[in-house]
Amino acid sequence: MTKPETLAALDRAALSPAEARELFRDGLVTPTAGWAGGYAQANLIIVPKAQAFDVLLFAQRNPKSCPILGVLDAGETSGPLLAGGDIRTDVPRYTVYVNGEKTADPTDITDYWRDDLVTFIVGCSFTFEAALQEGGIRIAHIDQGTNVPMYRTSVRCEPAGEMSGPLVVSMRPVPASQVADAVRITSRYPAVHGAPVHVGNPAEIGIADLGRPDFGDPVDIPAGHLPVFWACGVTPQAAVMESKPTLAIGHAPGHMLITDARDSAYLVP
Amino acid sequence: MTKPETLAALDRAALSPAEARELFRDGLVTPTAGWAGGYAQANLIIVPKAQAFDVLLFAQRNPKSCPILGVLDAGETSGPLLAGGDIRTDVPRYTVYVNGEKTADPTDITDYWRDDLVTFIVGCSFTFEAALQEGGIRIAHIDQGTNVPMYRTSVRCEPAGEMSGPLVVSMRPVPASQVADAVRITSRYPAVHGAPVHVGNPAEIGIADLGRPDFGDPVDIPAGHLPVFWACGVTPQAAVMESKPTLAIGHAPGHMLITDARDSAYLVP
Repeated sequence: MTKPETLAALDRAALSPAEARELFRDGLVTPTAGWAGGYAQANLIIVPKAQAFDVLLFAQRNPKSCPILGVLDAGETSGPLLAGGDIRTDVPRYTVYVNGEKTADPTDITDYWRDDLVTFIVGCSFTFEAALQEGGIRIAHIDQGTNVPMYRTSVRCEPAGEMSGPLVVSMRPVPASQVADAVRITSRYPAVHGAPVHVGNPAEIGIADLGRPDFGDPVDIPAGHLPVFWACGVTPQAAVMESKPTLAIGHAPGHMLITDARDSAYLVP
Repeated sequence: MTKPETLAALDRAALSPAEARELFRDGLVTPTAGWAGGYAQANLIIVPKAQAFDVLLFAQRNPKSCPILGVLDAGETSGPLLAGGDIRTDVPRYTVYVNGEKTADPTDITDYWRDDLVTFIVGCSFTFEAALQEGGIRIAHIDQGTNVPMYRTSVRCEPAGEMSGPLVVSMRPVPASQVADAVRITSRYPAVHGAPVHVGNPAEIGIADLGRPDFGDPVDIPAGHLPVFWACGVTPQAAVMESKPTLAIGHAPGHMLITDARDSAYLVP
């Protein structure tokens, strides 16, 4: 592709996934909301093979928060979801955990790579945001140009082997008259978190202050809107922080892998 | 429960899953179609922990044939899908594979049990048959009182580690005027094989003779009916026969685990 002279001139939504990945590989660092319209973005969790069964079973037991779109075998750095790409370089920013502690947030993980690392590519709710907008529901964090607010909850995931942790949710304010539409539309995308896990009462799931998200940025909740909560693909990273594998690598929240899969591939009847 | 004096007196559809499992535990051997109406029946595949990641990844990569409903950790013999039950005794008949060869079809696997065995509980198309009937579509093998016909195809599954093998399908003849209804209805049950994988041309998927199924019994295909093929939960057993783990245990085709999950739990909008 021809490189734009400035980032401002870039039509992010019109890029192909491969073009977007190439920009990130070449060093561009940015949240990815709104990029490569119509293509599915994804969360990452990368662990050594010794932990891979526990992670995959954790995902199977917690499908709303950890819907697996694809798995790269131990040592593999590319696959059909990122044809011609490289999982070590093609995400704008990563998060590295050593023994459960966040130790770095590099823009490239080539120096951390090992031949026993297994990559899990996990669905992201950005996929259903276009469908919500198409359905007439405004997305506050897109309107405000910020990262979606995410919260650790008091809801525990189903554990699997050594993996356990809290459910992490993303939140979007929805007018009371459109809550049913939001449920109906997102329930048709089970592979990217599906229907909400909770509507309207943050205290009940252990969220004390919506104004202080654990990840991302706060958004205003206008009068007449309810906070609606969807399971979030940051959940496996929260489990990694509790379960302390020797090494784990995720994406930085909001800085997703842009895959070659169409959003529409994950729509069910 | 009070034991019926004779099997003929038994109202199979009215039994609870726990009552049905108790009968099988006590030695009754029978195919399970029509038992415990409204409750999901399931395929089994049980392997040593050393093979468990490959089996789970194979299932993740082949979700139409291997939709996982639940996993019992290494050595576990019960779980929420069979509350109070025992996976070693509660299925009417099992199939045991040693190095990929079928060596026995016992009615109890207690003698084979090891503390490193992991049990995968896999969705079964019996779940959507009631919905098809409710939609006015007759099910030939139920009308004829036989086991559903199943075929190995020439379609290869996506491999995972050491697991690879052919897609196995079940077949139901459907009147041409109802094929669209059959697709629409079953597509709403993705956790139990979902929409058909093929309609109308068995030769194209390597089935030479519909009259000679690889598992189950043949059914007539009346004039004006098309053979419709759904992915089948016997697929992991076919992979086990190719991939030759030291030990694997499945259910005998048609002799399913009756779970405590409602069929309706697997319905998507």
